[in-house]
Amino acid sequence: MYPLLDTIQGPEDVRKLTEAQTEQLAAEIRDFLVCHVARTGGHLSANLGVVELTLALHRCFETPVDRIVFDVGHQSYVHKILTGRKDEFDRLRQKGGLSGFPKAQESAHDSFDTGHASTSVSAALGLAKARDLQGQKHFVVAVLGDGALTGGMAYEALNQAGRDKTPLIVVLNDNQMSIGPNVGALSRSLRGLRTKKSYLKFKLNLHRLLDKRDDSEDKGPVVRLIQRIKRRIKYFLLTGVFFEELGFTYLGPVDGNHLSEVEKILDQAKNLNKPVLVHIRTLKGKGYTPAEENSAAFHGIGPFDPETGECAVPSRSWADAVGSQLELMARQDRRLVAVTAAMPQGTGLEQFSKDFPRQFFDVGIAEEHAVTFSAGMAKGGLHPWVVIYSTFLQRAYDQILHDVCLPGLPVHLMLDHAGVVGEDGETHQGIFDIAYLGHIPGMQLMAPSCEEELRRMMAYAAACEGPTAIRYPKGKVANDMIERPLVIRGQGCVVRACEHPDYLILALGPCVQDALQAAEILRQKGIETEVADARFASALDPAWYHEMAARCGRILTVEDHIHQDGYGMKVRDLLYKQAEVRNLSLPDAFLKQGTRAELLRAAGICPEGIANLLEEWHEQE
Amino acid sequence: MYPLLDTIQGPEDVRKLTEAQTEQLAAEIRDFLVCHVARTGGHLSANLGVVELTLALHRCFETPVDRIVFDVGHQSYVHKILTGRKDEFDRLRQKGGLSGFPKAQESAHDSFDTGHASTSVSAALGLAKARDLQGQKHFVVAVLGDGALTGGMAYEALNQAGRDKTPLIVVLNDNQMSIGPNVGALSRSLRGLRTKKSYLKFKLNLHRLLDKRDDSEDKGPVVRLIQRIKRRIKYFLLTGVFFEELGFTYLGPVDGNHLSEVEKILDQAKNLNKPVLVHIRTLKGKGYTPAEENSAAFHGIGPFDPETGECAVPSRSWADAVGSQLELMARQDRRLVAVTAAMPQGTGLEQFSKDFPRQFFDVGIAEEHAVTFSAGMAKGGLHPWVVIYSTFLQRAYDQILHDVCLPGLPVHLMLDHAGVVGEDGETHQGIFDIAYLGHIPGMQLMAPSCEEELRRMMAYAAACEGPTAIRYPKGKVANDMIERPLVIRGQGCVVRACEHPDYLILALGPCVQDALQAAEILRQKGIETEVADARFASALDPAWYHEMAARCGRILTVEDHIHQDGYGMKVRDLLYKQAEVRNLSLPDAFLKQGTRAELLRAAGICPEGIANLLEEWHEQE
Repeated sequence: MYPLLDTIQGPEDVRKLTEAQTEQLAAEIRDFLVCHVARTGGHLSANLGVVELTLALHRCFETPVDRIVFDVGHQSYVHKILTGRKDEFDRLRQKGGLSGFPKAQESAHDSFDTGHASTSVSAALGLAKARDLQGQKHFVVAVLGDGALTGGMAYEALNQAGRDKTPLIVVLNDNQMSIGPNVGALSRSLRGLRTKKSYLKFKLNLHRLLDKRDDSEDKGPVVRLIQRIKRRIKYFLLTGVFFEELGFTYLGPVDGNHLSEVEKILDQAKNLNKPVLVHIRTLKGKGYTPAEENSAAFHGIGPFDPETGECAVPSRSWADAVGSQLELMARQDRRLVAVTAAMPQGTGLEQFSKDFPRQFFDVGIAEEHAVTFSAGMAKGGLHPWVVIYSTFLQRAYDQILHDVCLPGLPVHLMLDHAGVVGEDGETHQGIFDIAYLGHIPGMQLMAPSCEEELRRMMAYAAACEGPTAIRYPKGKVANDMIERPLVIRGQGCVVRACEHPDYLILALGPCVQDALQAAEILRQKGIETEVADARFASALDPAWYHEMAARCGRILTVEDHIHQDGYGMKVRDLLYKQAEVRNLSLPDAFLKQGTRAELLRAAGICPEGIANLLEEWHEQE
Repeated sequence: MYPLLDTIQGPEDVRKLTEAQTEQLAAEIRDFLVCHVARTGGHLSANLGVVELTLALHRCFETPVDRIVFDVGHQSYVHKILTGRKDEFDRLRQKGGLSGFPKAQESAHDSFDTGHASTSVSAALGLAKARDLQGQKHFVVAVLGDGALTGGMAYEALNQAGRDKTPLIVVLNDNQMSIGPNVGALSRSLRGLRTKKSYLKFKLNLHRLLDKRDDSEDKGPVVRLIQRIKRRIKYFLLTGVFFEELGFTYLGPVDGNHLSEVEKILDQAKNLNKPVLVHIRTLKGKGYTPAEENSAAFHGIGPFDPETGECAVPSRSWADAVGSQLELMARQDRRLVAVTAAMPQGTGLEQFSKDFPRQFFDVGIAEEHAVTFSAGMAKGGLHPWVVIYSTFLQRAYDQILHDVCLPGLPVHLMLDHAGVVGEDGETHQGIFDIAYLGHIPGMQLMAPSCEEELRRMMAYAAACEGPTAIRYPKGKVANDMIERPLVIRGQGCVVRACEHPDYLILALGPCVQDALQAAEILRQKGIETEVADARFASALDPAWYHEMAARCGRILTVEDHIHQDGYGMKVRDLLYKQAEVRNLSLPDAFLKQGTRAELLRAAGICPEGIANLLEEWHEQE
């Protein structure tokens, strides 16, 4: 029971509250968030950080007439609570339930669907142009974090908005998660400086002072501290200039967890009628001690104990397996380097980054740069491994094709969260990667079925002179203890042989384990099924496939990817007229949230689904 | 005969020259460039602009030990001339000849292959990290134009380089082609200011002054002139700050066509051992009056008369047809908007931009932003058409999938230069677009076979509630005068019917004209061939295809795209076991330069090739 929150039916109710009431509402929302996310899992830290900001936004602007675009969008829970979706939080991120991201289909208050970083300014600028060309009058606000500002697309959009002088409010939610130099290192004590008359004079003197600083000389801890403070001051000053140069009026920074300050600065921004950047500072995890102390762990989290903040210890994931294998390889190879795009934790590279700091690069949310940067390192003689989620690597399609595969450079792409990702839903599914990588000349795309296979494939990739990619799913790594031969380009390997197979299953990656179980079910029904681990999703070896077709003329492919341009279509094309090939894949559609198991089962990608399909085929024969 | 140039065997010879000799060499190189490009065609303006810069680079740095990365790369002709490839210029951009872009395969002096914009800083940073990790000592230099700086990827790379303090020299070749506010508006009279002691004080006063300026008030021509000058001054000052904030030491600007000045500033940069941005200003087309006066026309040009600068008037191109159709539609629809990424001329939108300035947006070399910006405009109620070359739209794969197709927004993508582009070679071929767009749920990808079809498809797209894309080739638009019905989703149409066809050709886009001619050849040999215009390359309608298969069980698909994930593979998959489908496509490989006709003929995508293929098939039956 929440005395105030329960009375909020929509944002208009928020605007009726006094300041004191709104602050009470903020406290109730924090409690609501912790209780609900503890049960369902979800993005907690970011949402706890933006409670006051979101309240202020809804008090200063009137959605859905005014438009608010949340960059990335996982910080839109408070917005959802305030716009009539509070009662749906019990089914947050569950199949058929509330999405964890903004969805225009859910509410008119969600003005643009987001999910990937750095898109909000582009989208907001588009909405603003549409407003202006149609003679409408309303505000357009983009809310983006300092992390999203490391993505070049945000800069492209700021550049155009500033040039065109399009009225637009960009709220920079600086929660110190950025790795870039330009933001994230601001001191609250500097707040208000900008408005003082002495500002420019102060800046002049400071510049003089700072230009004398030399980082390379070590002058002891006190001098280092002073230098650190100076650097912070410098970044503060330059941050404003940075945006002003791009044509924006810069306001801030103010404490983003201080309601009336945020309202005041947003009101200022409303009156300017030009591109304005409002810089606010918030604390990730604000108000919930476990999240304040470890905001990264509470970034995206499973269910946890709200009293203690304790979360079930996750089992060893594919990401963990990749991280430890890269460690192992780095011990032998000083030219090995690992690259991540702002996700050292999520991609299992945290330990690597500590053990091999010189060989580790976190480039920020900048997937395009990550890939071409790695191409440059490969050209210079290093051995780069780029570890990025399948869905985010979509950003770098052109760089992979143009800067890696065209010159044939040995860059190794590791696609984490490939296939079905589950609760994050349609903006995060890794179900397009065979389609966007499989046709690029020279690219070898692999998918391991178990941890041992992952190691074999990474060893194979390391020995390749050209580009490789390995896709592997979210979650617990498999171990099937089946012996397999060394990896050979484009070839799979039989993992369950039969003397006279009725059917051959060619299964890719995690589907191999399902196929093996399906074969056992089928055996009990008198159907003999051979299972091969496909290993490669592209650059398939025709000879090996022809050999397989000769062994068994009825082939079923199984993959956790859409059908179009997937593995199955490639096999069907390759074995045209040589075998009857049927494909089991995900439907050719965007795939909404649900647990991984639910979503895969719904598509028939599970032991029973595979067995049923072959049983039906058997009855047709 | 060039007295000095003929003695230059490699860059070491350039370093032996006196300044006066080098200036003479510059004049000879300009003459050489004009004479050769007049015969072969190519990128002239940019290369004329960087003659002194390239000479200075080779006098200050020692390639191939030092590395120079040319952004985009079409300005590398002078570099090629100086690095032993002068004699190959007779076959510039011709099949088997010298590429118009840097190629490591051609020379060790080409340290990284480029072709698409904004990649040079990423690649150079990778080379610099490789140098540092391996304990090597050499210089790494990235050369990029101000246009390339509008691409967000350049910013991502500068951001990392500045943070890491990696020694790296970025030469910003400011030739005033940029549309962004941050560069390109500098006055030469300001050169040197930066080094003066009064610099910061001057800047302070200026900032005060400029902050009082208000653009919105019109105060007559004199005030406007003063404002313009002030703005130029402001941009100059801020440009330096912009890069300094990103962690770079900023040097410049200097006159990039003044050899000794460029050498001096490069020498300064060499001594700094940190990330340095060297800002130089050059004149595109420098030294050749027709190119100076119209540098855009001489950007990429066909053969021309070197005396007059006159070029054969090109015939009406597909781009022209798109431009005039958009004009026609804009007259009826005030919500229609056209978006280009720094190529209003190349995409046929120059007239549109003049006639409908409010409905036209050139966002700079920022394809990612262009697409999401358009998604925002569509969400706001406008009707955006995004006109970008097929090869450059690769940059926006994620944005198309995530921001346009997932929410199903009616954004219309116009893919110019789809298929084989010819002389620009492998970095510019538009032969992957069916592969990267065809699998995206909800996307309808079309390809017109003639101008009338283009108009029909654009009318169909305008009426669609979801995303569409139309791919069309470079060069002269076709007109076949064959009547066709209105466009229906996913369906083709028969353009040459037979009573009892032996074969059915399903041809896509420009291949329809080849197929029609092939059918005539075959008729004379007694083989009856029906020809259908496929119209759609994705979202194929199964019912229509089944109907076709029922009419004729032997089907040949023809497309100007690679085989993998192309149109043919989709038809083969759709008609599996219903018809025998053979595919004629481009080989699954990167495709080097040559004329369009040469390259298509080599793949058999021509009337004779198609006829031969069906004749062989006929003999097999």
